[in-house]
Amino acid sequence: MNAPLAKFDPKLDLMLERDIDVPVERVWQAWTTPAQIREWFVPKPWTIASCEIDLRPGGAFNTVMRSPEGEEFPNMGCYLEVVPNERLIWTDTLLAGYRPAPKPFFTAALLLAPNGSGTRYTAIAMHGEEAARQRHEDMGFHDGWGTVLDQLVAFIKQSR
Amino acid sequence: MNAPLAKFDPKLDLMLERDIDVPVERVWQAWTTPAQIREWFVPKPWTIASCEIDLRPGGAFNTVMRSPEGEEFPNMGCYLEVVPNERLIWTDTLLAGYRPAPKPFFTAALLLAPNGSGTRYTAIAMHGEEAARQRHEDMGFHDGWGTVLDQLVAFIKQSR
Repeated sequence: MNAPLAKFDPKLDLMLERDIDVPVERVWQAWTTPAQIREWFVPKPWTIASCEIDLRPGGAFNTVMRSPEGEEFPNMGCYLEVVPNERLIWTDTLLAGYRPAPKPFFTAALLLAPNGSGTRYTAIAMHGEEAARQRHEDMGFHDGWGTVLDQLVAFIKQSR
Repeated sequence: MNAPLAKFDPKLDLMLERDIDVPVERVWQAWTTPAQIREWFVPKPWTIASCEIDLRPGGAFNTVMRSPEGEEFPNMGCYLEVVPNERLIWTDTLLAGYRPAPKPFFTAALLLAPNGSGTRYTAIAMHGEEAARQRHEDMGFHDGWGTVLDQLVAFIKQSR
């Protein structure tokens, strides 16, 4: 039994919560399968150049985002909790195998719950300092995570 | 099943490995019980002013060290893996509940294995950058961790 997630703190954390009309199992697959991540994980016309998923605590969650101009931005992280169809927690404060990351920024939690035939979708980004939360917000957290959630739903619907 | 610990890298990591003549179970208790931590965890005449242990992944591992002059130094961390009598992994890059820590520094792994009636004791400190490893070494990692291991063994023997 794991300890509960840190309490949401509006000064430090960001949250996107939405009811979506695709089933929990499909959302989980879209988040945990490299081939599916490529389809929705970055706002188009950005693309995913590569994705490595080792879906267990301590395992890698690494993606490389590619801008329309071809510039690449790696995002390296480590899974902390993996509960299929319910919760996925990872952090970029650690690399795979729990090694501290050179540029720690946030811990993310994806919480899924069935809602009729759809899903109550909650994504939380936790930071260690107010300035980091602010930076994430200024980078476009709400727009960005909202846009890719639209893409996720569209991808699941068109691939039924 | 968790992913393996990151491969030991001498540029980034520090290790203390020793065979000690006290049983694995007693070492585990000494590391995971606040009342026992107080007896050996800091080089005397330093003391432990407080200790909070929530022994599960995501749980707090917080101690406050007190200098002989009465100055207090908090160390806040989060457990990542808890396998009784075998392995204890925690990090100060996260606080309890996986919130990123304001001043991340290292991940620690305590690995225990039976060795006759004693214990093969391995403590590893992993860092994200060479400068952090060097700073930890300069702070006296080997002397410090060696001294408290002597204290741990003496504590277990005198409390038999």
